[in-house]
Amino acid sequence: MKPNTKPRIAVDAMGGDNGPSIVVPGAVRAAREHGLSVTLVGDESAISTELFRLDTAGLDISVVHAGDVAEMHEKPSEILRRKTDTSIQVACRLVKDGLADGVVSAGHSGATTACGMFIIGRVRGVKRAAFASVLPTVKKPMVLLDVGANVDSKPQHLFQFGIMGEVFARDVLGYERPRVGLMSIGEEEGKGNVQVKEAFDLLKASSMNFKGNVEGRDVFTGDVDVIVCDGFVGNVALKLSEGLAMSLGKVLKRELLGSWLGKIGTFLAKGRLKRFAKFVDYAEYGGAPILGLNGIVIVCHGASNEKAITNAVKMAGQFVRSAANEHIKEELQSNQDLSACA
Amino acid sequence: MKPNTKPRIAVDAMGGDNGPSIVVPGAVRAAREHGLSVTLVGDESAISTELFRLDTAGLDISVVHAGDVAEMHEKPSEILRRKTDTSIQVACRLVKDGLADGVVSAGHSGATTACGMFIIGRVRGVKRAAFASVLPTVKKPMVLLDVGANVDSKPQHLFQFGIMGEVFARDVLGYERPRVGLMSIGEEEGKGNVQVKEAFDLLKASSMNFKGNVEGRDVFTGDVDVIVCDGFVGNVALKLSEGLAMSLGKVLKRELLGSWLGKIGTFLAKGRLKRFAKFVDYAEYGGAPILGLNGIVIVCHGASNEKAITNAVKMAGQFVRSAANEHIKEELQSNQDLSACA
Repeated sequence: MKPNTKPRIAVDAMGGDNGPSIVVPGAVRAAREHGLSVTLVGDESAISTELFRLDTAGLDISVVHAGDVAEMHEKPSEILRRKTDTSIQVACRLVKDGLADGVVSAGHSGATTACGMFIIGRVRGVKRAAFASVLPTVKKPMVLLDVGANVDSKPQHLFQFGIMGEVFARDVLGYERPRVGLMSIGEEEGKGNVQVKEAFDLLKASSMNFKGNVEGRDVFTGDVDVIVCDGFVGNVALKLSEGLAMSLGKVLKRELLGSWLGKIGTFLAKGRLKRFAKFVDYAEYGGAPILGLNGIVIVCHGASNEKAITNAVKMAGQFVRSAANEHIKEELQSNQDLSACA
Repeated sequence: MKPNTKPRIAVDAMGGDNGPSIVVPGAVRAAREHGLSVTLVGDESAISTELFRLDTAGLDISVVHAGDVAEMHEKPSEILRRKTDTSIQVACRLVKDGLADGVVSAGHSGATTACGMFIIGRVRGVKRAAFASVLPTVKKPMVLLDVGANVDSKPQHLFQFGIMGEVFARDVLGYERPRVGLMSIGEEEGKGNVQVKEAFDLLKASSMNFKGNVEGRDVFTGDVDVIVCDGFVGNVALKLSEGLAMSLGKVLKRELLGSWLGKIGTFLAKGRLKRFAKFVDYAEYGGAPILGLNGIVIVCHGASNEKAITNAVKMAGQFVRSAANEHIKEELQSNQDLSACA
């Protein structure tokens, strides 16, 4: 992105359970509130219908037609092989061709990831792109990565995840000197598996604000800002968190509504219980960024509401505006010896 | 254990934050309610003081003196090297010498694990002992293993964890034909890392009621009874669950007590909120069994209350009474080709 220009975000308008009716107003709101240039990609007439209902005066909104859609039942590899004109492919090509700086999609997450990797490609020097997740803590949000783009990661991959997570936490979340932890099964140096023990040495030798090993229980305390792990571990951790939060919510509801006193109490405490629910609401954080690509791709939940889309487009805009990829390149460069060793 | 004899459980009376004052009554209660023979191991006079306060008429309770204690700041390896007479070492030697069938300790968990492995030793044919955790779900409890005894597990280790978890779920939890799942990052066959993909084939070929891959979110749904994973992944998952449940509890409390209406509502719904708290109460499940040893070792939380100790001693008793180790041997035998392959 050139200085003093607006970040240009391509938004897959067909993505998500509700398609353009949710995505278009969410994206338009992000354009208005955050001064972004937004390109809506997908079926032109469906997008126009939605735009017609909205006030877009003075906003930098454009539409690029894409005649096809990545269906949820299709495998990412099939989509890439057999289709060329799905909204997510067209959006990613805009970035590849220099016509956009980033992509947001609530559509087929596997296809979005694959298109990000294969159409947009990686930042020079990045060995593996990583899926990051912004999670709530009792203090402020933290970044967990990788949450599923890579399994059987090598120590230097974990090291690069640390750099990318640190830059994201600083540039996008605004943390001054992000504290980076390495997920392990004991806090002392020397705990963990082979992969983690070697990654520890690399992180420790780096310029990062490395806080050493952390454990599963540290994810939600807010005592570190970035936690690095292999994609297998991170994916289990992320899905477990979602599952546990949902199960606890169910049990809480079942218990509270299981008696009259409970029901009255719940009614009175309703506002407060809603604030609790907000704590575990994914819409607060918008989507999961894929870091390490030549641009930025934000993958949103299929059930995203308007607010989640707005927040995801805003996240993409902030990533571009802060020149995060330039900072990733610089940090990789200045820690070159570490990420090169194998 | 001979038929028609009582399971004999050695209990580390010095273990836990509160030592004999909690452990002794907890163990005595288990002896009474579950018809167990209990040997209390530790400082004889401290144990006698506690026993004196309790009604032990007709119960099979004995005391074995141990003059030393494993201090929390000591490393397990140091304890094993430098000490010989800690309560946990003496308790494990009772099993080794055929004077007890199992051990329960709320003391130094690292030392308990090490003593279990090195003093008691493994069941013939078991390649790695595994730490199991009984977790609440929205339906009935399930078993997650390994939760930290092994890292960098080989596929056939995971396979054996499956056998041990299945036998535990059947013999101790009483599930007729336990459903076994393999922790992965996608439900389809072929998802996961190298280790998991190979373990999948072994589990699939076995006599187990194998349900295929499960994901992090399936831990708390109760749709499988046993989930198999490497100790690194399981330990992160377990500690993450504890941490998230605690953080959600904190946020819930903060929100509920943050307004007058919330406070009144909370007061009215108090009984129901307590039932919710019970859902995440570790005392319900007593402790974490180490499976694959010549006997059984149950490791309890240091903060265990009397109920947790009672439940842990009961769990040990049930493990012995059901001849679970014989069943593990039989299943290993009948699946010999699979657990031998490498």
